[in-house]
Amino acid sequence: MKSKKWVSAVLLLQLCYTGCGFCGKVLVWPCDMSHWLNLKVILEKLMERGHEVTVLVSSQNFLIENNKPSTLDFEIFSVPQDKETAENNLNEFLNLSVNVMPTLSPWQSAKKLQDFFLEISADLKLVCESVVYNQTLMKKLQDTNYNVMVIDPVTPCGRPTTLCETMGKAEIWLIRTYWDFEFPRPYLPNFEFVGGLHCKPAKPLPKEMEEFVQSSGEDGIVVFSLGSMVKNLTEEKANRIASALAQIPQKVLWRYKGKKPATLGANTRLYDWIPQNDLLGHPKAKAFITHGGTNGIYEAIYHGVPMVGVPMFADQPDNIAHMKAKGAAVEVNINTMTSADLLNALRTVINEPSYKENAMRLKMIHHDQPVKPLDRAVFWIEFVMRHKGAKHLRPAAHNLTWYQYHSLDVIGFLLACVATAVFLVTKCCLFSCRKFGKTGKKKKRE
Amino acid sequence: MKSKKWVSAVLLLQLCYTGCGFCGKVLVWPCDMSHWLNLKVILEKLMERGHEVTVLVSSQNFLIENNKPSTLDFEIFSVPQDKETAENNLNEFLNLSVNVMPTLSPWQSAKKLQDFFLEISADLKLVCESVVYNQTLMKKLQDTNYNVMVIDPVTPCGRPTTLCETMGKAEIWLIRTYWDFEFPRPYLPNFEFVGGLHCKPAKPLPKEMEEFVQSSGEDGIVVFSLGSMVKNLTEEKANRIASALAQIPQKVLWRYKGKKPATLGANTRLYDWIPQNDLLGHPKAKAFITHGGTNGIYEAIYHGVPMVGVPMFADQPDNIAHMKAKGAAVEVNINTMTSADLLNALRTVINEPSYKENAMRLKMIHHDQPVKPLDRAVFWIEFVMRHKGAKHLRPAAHNLTWYQYHSLDVIGFLLACVATAVFLVTKCCLFSCRKFGKTGKKKKRE
Repeated sequence: MKSKKWVSAVLLLQLCYTGCGFCGKVLVWPCDMSHWLNLKVILEKLMERGHEVTVLVSSQNFLIENNKPSTLDFEIFSVPQDKETAENNLNEFLNLSVNVMPTLSPWQSAKKLQDFFLEISADLKLVCESVVYNQTLMKKLQDTNYNVMVIDPVTPCGRPTTLCETMGKAEIWLIRTYWDFEFPRPYLPNFEFVGGLHCKPAKPLPKEMEEFVQSSGEDGIVVFSLGSMVKNLTEEKANRIASALAQIPQKVLWRYKGKKPATLGANTRLYDWIPQNDLLGHPKAKAFITHGGTNGIYEAIYHGVPMVGVPMFADQPDNIAHMKAKGAAVEVNINTMTSADLLNALRTVINEPSYKENAMRLKMIHHDQPVKPLDRAVFWIEFVMRHKGAKHLRPAAHNLTWYQYHSLDVIGFLLACVATAVFLVTKCCLFSCRKFGKTGKKKKRE
Repeated sequence: MKSKKWVSAVLLLQLCYTGCGFCGKVLVWPCDMSHWLNLKVILEKLMERGHEVTVLVSSQNFLIENNKPSTLDFEIFSVPQDKETAENNLNEFLNLSVNVMPTLSPWQSAKKLQDFFLEISADLKLVCESVVYNQTLMKKLQDTNYNVMVIDPVTPCGRPTTLCETMGKAEIWLIRTYWDFEFPRPYLPNFEFVGGLHCKPAKPLPKEMEEFVQSSGEDGIVVFSLGSMVKNLTEEKANRIASALAQIPQKVLWRYKGKKPATLGANTRLYDWIPQNDLLGHPKAKAFITHGGTNGIYEAIYHGVPMVGVPMFADQPDNIAHMKAKGAAVEVNINTMTSADLLNALRTVINEPSYKENAMRLKMIHHDQPVKPLDRAVFWIEFVMRHKGAKHLRPAAHNLTWYQYHSLDVIGFLLACVATAVFLVTKCCLFSCRKFGKTGKKKKRE
């Protein structure tokens, strides 16, 4: 009897400690793939703090359902397309980005990408319509009285919109970077930079993997992944990479689902999946070969590991450019590189001390914040719930038209004033001249 | 013996708890008057966390030495002027701002203020020179190896400078406001908004004052102060104010050192000094009549008290404009107002519920921050000490010239390219025309 009381007291204490003091209902419109891996960390924390979280998921999701925290409530809505269409769209996008666009000029590839998005916009619209025209679902959502909606606004929905309009809709923007990654620049008070919120201290590796890592001795290991989207490479590319990896003294853990390259060295092992964060946090990690997604880059920053970037599409080239500028990465072009290029890049980041030093500097900046990124993300979501918004952080510029924003109305008015004044003065002068002229002539005649 | 051990263990624990893990040396160049009241709160916290703090103080300071935490280390340097000159300068500034400038047009008063500052710039320069040309003092400061310098950059020194140049010098800018006060606008990553860092929960009032406050019953009290600089008003102004105050049912606590006004009501008491924060935090506080200094405004925000603003100079009119726009204040012009104007303003903020509601909304925003302003101020000072700066927050724009900043060099180059192209095309056309023209003529002749 006594021990039971004690247990309930502890539970209560724990509730008091982790609770938010205001438990609300959160509706989530997520984005698939790597974005989801990032967002779900916030949702898990929200649930831990006692909020009810509902995620709207299309029946055609790729990764969300397989990467679902067991306690998370999903509202799965069916879309009229078959899963094959969605898969085809994704594969077409990957093929375009990885194989086609690198062979084109910047103008041509931008045009190609625009054509692709115009082509699939009908499919994207269908997904939205499957929710907003589903009366049963909409009624259910409306009746639930959600306190806040968390949206990952990657794909557009029907009506046409602009980036500026979208920016003006949200109360708070959680930005997936921080000043360890960004170049310092002005930003708005409703921006919260929460990059690296998903990073954690490394956990122990599986036994077989730990043995392989330990076998690297003083030389350490290289971690290699091209992210959750790119699973294969052409045989020729894979061979070029493998032969470079075979020439370094480090052991290499390569996440790769394609055919085993013929040039694969004894120091390199292929894996369907790797515990990337745990490997990067391992004391033996010397370098990270990455496609440059923000999730991976932040795991490298969190653990202070220098990078070799092989960016392919979307924000990847820009992300790697940031890491290059901060001296923590070397970039190679996966389409044009030779084995020697990759080998040189790897040797540079591993052997030139500045790369490790810069990576460690970024790590220090990342860890030295007054509040951790995840806690700040949760704080501002809860703030919006508590105060029904964050209007005090909303710049009035969002309510201006483009000509008001650029003060064109004011400039126009002032120019009109000047023009009127010039017109009047000119008229007066002409009038006076004519009058005095006439008087002069009259006088002359007299 | 046993109890002594226990005591030292507790002390050690406390040190571990409050210590910063890195105890450094802080050199401070403060500003006098209300600015000092604000800064000294940060310095007290830095000392509490184990840092050595040295404040450079001119022998001619007005308020700093009298408002000195006992543990604070002062380095007092003597300046060649006598204290009278400094007092005369201050009084001339106050007379100019409060009495002369309100009677002039904006252009005239700006000119007058500029003339005044040009006149006293030699005196301000003397203060700087008394430090930088004092070789003994400079040697002592250099030998101490300070980790960080905290500067309140109000008065200009050493050579002419610009706001932009000064902005580029600091690693971190601690801004004395927050989004409860500011209009949302873009800002730089090395800005930390720490407004209200000096605010604290109210302490009990002195017995006699508490009795007076309690005697107000349901009606409550009005707190009235024009800040630490303005001590007197003309007899006529004081009477106009007193007669307005006499007509409200609230009790009034007025900080005023001048002659007792003839029209003073029985509900109004004059004080040489009031515990402003404790009065504003008293449950009976209904309104605050303020000149609009940021310290006072933040105490009103912290406790959710609506304001009547009587701004006089410097940032005061702008501060009150912010509070008016946020619906927490009414403004009266101290030079042109009648008794009825002040009375109406007081009745409005006390009786119209929106003013109290808006003041409470600002209070809620102020108190709902992930980290308290004082802790953030101390965090970033310590960050600069730990990392020898905060270069990762410094915008590259600080290193650009004005024509680079506005891209005039790029635009100039592009215009030059266009001009060259136009010139070449025109020349070619003319050349071709002449040639073909000649050929044509020749042909005609043939």
